Amino acid sequence: MEDSQIYQTKRITIPEAEKILGQKFKCLDDGFVYLVDYMGGDQSIVQAARVSYGTGTKKIQEDEGLIRYLMRHRHTTPLEMVELKFHIRTPMDCWRQWIRHRTANVNEYSTRYSVAIDSAQKTPEDEWRMQSTINKQGSSGFLEESKGKELSKKEEELHKLSRNLYEERLANGIAREQARKDLPLSTYTEAYWKIDLHNLFHFLGLRMEPHAQKEIREYATIIGEDIVSKVAPIAYRAFKEYGLNSTRLSELDILGLKRYIKGEDPQKLAEEIFNNKRERDEFLIKLTKFKD
Amino acid sequence: MEDSQIYQTKRITIPEAEKILGQKFKCLDDGFVYLVDYMGGDQSIVQAARVSYGTGTKKIQEDEGLIRYLMRHRHTTPLEMVELKFHIRTPMDCWRQWIRHRTANVNEYSTRYSVAIDSAQKTPEDEWRMQSTINKQGSSGFLEESKGKELSKKEEELHKLSRNLYEERLANGIAREQARKDLPLSTYTEAYWKIDLHNLFHFLGLRMEPHAQKEIREYATIIGEDIVSKVAPIAYRAFKEYGLNSTRLSELDILGLKRYIKGEDPQKLAEEIFNNKRERDEFLIKLTKFKD
Amino acid sequence: MEDSQIYQTKRITIPEAEKILGQKFKCLDDGFVYLVDYMGGDQSIVQAARVSYGTGTKKIQEDEGLIRYLMRHRHTTPLEMVELKFHIRTPMDCWRQWIRHRTANVNEYSTRYSVAIDSAQKTPEDEWRMQSTINKQGSSGFLEESKGKELSKKEEELHKLSRNLYEERLANGIAREQARKDLPLSTYTEAYWKIDLHNLFHFLGLRMEPHAQKEIREYATIIGEDIVSKVAPIAYRAFKEYGLNSTRLSELDILGLKRYIKGEDPQKLAEEIFNNKRERDEFLIKLTKFKD
Amino acid sequence: MEDSQIYQTKRITIPEAEKILGQKFKCLDDGFVYLVDYMGGDQSIVQAARVSYGTGTKKIQEDEGLIRYLMRHRHTTPLEMVELKFHIRTPMDCWRQWIRHRTANVNEYSTRYSVAIDSAQKTPEDEWRMQSTINKQGSSGFLEESKGKELSKKEEELHKLSRNLYEERLANGIAREQARKDLPLSTYTEAYWKIDLHNLFHFLGLRMEPHAQKEIREYATIIGEDIVSKVAPIAYRAFKEYGLNSTRLSELDILGLKRYIKGEDPQKLAEEIFNNKRERDEFLIKLTKFKD
Repeated sequence: MEDSQIYQTKRITIPEAEKILGQKFKCLDDGFVYLVDYMGGDQSIVQAARVSYGTGTKKIQEDEGLIRYLMRHRHTTPLEMVELKFHIRTPMDCWRQWIRHRTANVNEYSTRYSVAIDSAQKTPEDEWRMQSTINKQGSSGFLEESKGKELSKKEEELHKLSRNLYEERLANGIAREQARKDLPLSTYTEAYWKIDLHNLFHFLGLRMEPHAQKEIREYATIIGEDIVSKVAPIAYRAFKEYGLNSTRLSELDILGLKRYIKGEDPQKLAEEIFNNKRERDEFLIKLTKFKD
Repeated sequence: MEDSQIYQTKRITIPEAEKILGQKFKCLDDGFVYLVDYMGGDQSIVQAARVSYGTGTKKIQEDEGLIRYLMRHRHTTPLEMVELKFHIRTPMDCWRQWIRHRTANVNEYSTRYSVAIDSAQKTPEDEWRMQSTINKQGSSGFLEESKGKELSKKEEELHKLSRNLYEERLANGIAREQARKDLPLSTYTEAYWKIDLHNLFHFLGLRMEPHAQKEIREYATIIGEDIVSKVAPIAYRAFKEYGLNSTRLSELDILGLKRYIKGEDPQKLAEEIFNNKRERDEFLIKLTKFKD
Repeated sequence: MEDSQIYQTKRITIPEAEKILGQKFKCLDDGFVYLVDYMGGDQSIVQAARVSYGTGTKKIQEDEGLIRYLMRHRHTTPLEMVELKFHIRTPMDCWRQWIRHRTANVNEYSTRYSVAIDSAQKTPEDEWRMQSTINKQGSSGFLEESKGKELSKKEEELHKLSRNLYEERLANGIAREQARKDLPLSTYTEAYWKIDLHNLFHFLGLRMEPHAQKEIREYATIIGEDIVSKVAPIAYRAFKEYGLNSTRLSELDILGLKRYIKGEDPQKLAEEIFNNKRERDEFLIKLTKFKD
Repeated sequence: MEDSQIYQTKRITIPEAEKILGQKFKCLDDGFVYLVDYMGGDQSIVQAARVSYGTGTKKIQEDEGLIRYLMRHRHTTPLEMVELKFHIRTPMDCWRQWIRHRTANVNEYSTRYSVAIDSAQKTPEDEWRMQSTINKQGSSGFLEESKGKELSKKEEELHKLSRNLYEERLANGIAREQARKDLPLSTYTEAYWKIDLHNLFHFLGLRMEPHAQKEIREYATIIGEDIVSKVAPIAYRAFKEYGLNSTRLSELDILGLKRYIKGEDPQKLAEEIFNNKRERDEFLIKLTKFKD
């Protein structure tokens, strides 16, 4: 490698990313996402990938093609060369899901050191979601507004009561670490969250998809559509095409699709191939993607 | 390596550990810790360490000496060869701290799939802790019982109210993922938690020490004293001597202690060495460990 | 959760796995893989998954269906509850690829402490592989044996010479840590390697597939087919169907396949959809999976 | 938190770090280290730490005191908010140790894709190190030059021979992935290596210390002294005082030192306290730090 040709003496700067530094992206009723800092972009992915190729192949591939190739073939280590740092404000309930992604660096607001943020996520009267009957962990449709109004009112009362009790404890001199114990999960917290692009795509792949809970999906969508799309636009587009909007076909799915293409009846072939009802149904749903 | 000598054809079994499998260790008012499974013990640490030495040194070191040597010199990779799996029940507030340890495997009870556990941690009237005045994140002493009684009563009311509202939401058909949003942080959750011994010692080192919050300290102490002490007794003892109960002396601490040993006045030498008041005070506190 | 129902007071034992503990699986000319220890199996995956469901759903799902469901929907955390420990002997060149998987615990034979293992991987005269012309990082076909004989002879001489020089250095009293510096990459090393099932499947997914280098593919295949298939047979089968032998279709692939099903000419539609020649070619290759 | 006060709309720029971007730091005979990119510095540590404190405490602590406090009390998460990216060239033998640090992002030069770098680390005739007699994994002193001359000559011949054989294989059309198998471990490789400051300090703590092998110690020292000292000077100084140059005293060490301070005879008290000869000797060596 002729390293003299490779080395910039400046950090990679992404003009589109610079524009959104310090810009507040609002989320839910009182949450937000900031891009606080970033390291690298599409260019850093290419730079790192090319360390593998040495001088010889340097000119052959062009950037977009290379990034798409990496995404397609799961050569994900060059994506780890881009890093993003966010400041977020989100309800603790949402944060409980967020923090499960272990490959990030985290600094959370401490309610041992400081008084808890005086804000809890409120549910508008027309946004109470009904339990899904087909998806045990999902929701579907909304409660009628007249009933929702009642629930929202009671929610507000509970928030007020919980906060008052919290403050009464503090006024009694109770330690913050203990006084906080009955705050509702809807209480907002804040955190710095720093992650590399590969792991961020993993997060977005799970949290932008329709099965993710609505609240975290809103955050993930902002992070993807409004921020990552600026920091690494080529990689982000490739992530959507090859990741988020792609479909995985299992061995049996491939067999099923093959027989469907030959003209067999989908219902009948599915029954022959899939013993398990749930797998069969999922295959038939998948199949609709290939029809009009 | 003469591998024929190394290989057992059975898993390493620790009789003391077998006895506590499936045994419930109670914690707080309604929490618990179970040892669900384990892989290896002191013997596995030795086995792994010896892969480094080859045949030649196999007989020279005896097990305890070797394990203590590894702990003393931060050769921690052999400790990673032991794995423990727990089932715990803990308040969500405590879990929020627990989950910050990223190097474990976790399966938590899902309140999207299932109705939330109907139990929240209650504070007895004589266990309301006062805010520490010297440690911004700690507590010190207790609230007088007459006042504590009042707080405990209000706590109970809040728990009842929160739960009722949660169940009212469910009765209205609201999705579990949303209905849960205002549960108090004191609500119990459960999880499988699996971790290797090296990372477990890191956890215990931070969570058994006096500055850790009382609630998580109780869990950590049970895990250490009642469970790890059975699975890997030699390593656990070494962890306490070289880790938990050890003291780190900084460059300036070493200098200060040296001058103290020569007979200088501690207050005066501390003022000369440490510009920062807080560092100076911490040095003087450390010094008391070396006096009677 | 009625925990009394869940808890075994013994570790989960897999009879098929017990049979292969301490059994040597040979690999390459002088390498091996041992299963040294394991924690859990299919049953542990189910056990952990059910902590999510609580009592209510405990009887509804049967084990195989549940495991397959988890694999299909990337609910991978229960897979992390199974742990396997191996002892392997592999050439350093192969180990260089192996160690790139960062989510494992590792104890490698130390050539600072001990004299390097006196064995280097030899290439039989009919196994010199030719550079692939279509895959820059692959091989394809073999060198004719007469030439291979020559190369194998020279290889043997180089191994002998390198070893002699290594031993000459040691005889001169040179430190092992320095004497080793010119050992060939083909020199065998040994290691304990411990990993959870989720991360092991990730490893196998990358290393059992045809593009992986032949040497590591041999190890991965033994680990998968001879060992994991015994420890967690249901999960392993699901991994093959949903992971290893599955196909991912990108947004554009789905579009292309849809048009193909409608009867459009594959070559023509591919040209319309894919700007990039490489992507187009890969689509056309993928398409052959759905024809006879 | 009044976020409007916190947010810069520009990335944190460290003038001293900017100066060394793209500057080559030579190491060994043909290796190097470049700082390719960085994210944040001392200021980012403070920024992240303060998310814990909220508005109230913002003005009380000054930066240096806060960073030193964090280092002293193992509050290491704010250190993870700084990220550094290096391009290094190092012998594969050294890289084998380097890569054991799992918490970094890595892109290594691929000898499957490209012809191996034509350079191997050479040992000058006066730098052949003798095996340490007290430290089984270390070296101590040098071989006399007349003998060293002979070893260096043979080393050069071996390098030449190995390279010739490698190129002969390539000339025969052998796949690069196989042709490389007998390259000496001294062959140079290159990599991008990206890591956060907390994990970098862990690396430096192990690799800058006297027991680390000389080769990797040279790299670590350059990274610490020439690069990290520029990117985060306050944190680096604190790392040296509280980490690298600190001493850990075990429970028994503390007891021993206490008795020594009271005037007891070191040899005698050590014999009473430490059963294990090795521990005793290490205590006595430690004691010399507190004498002149």
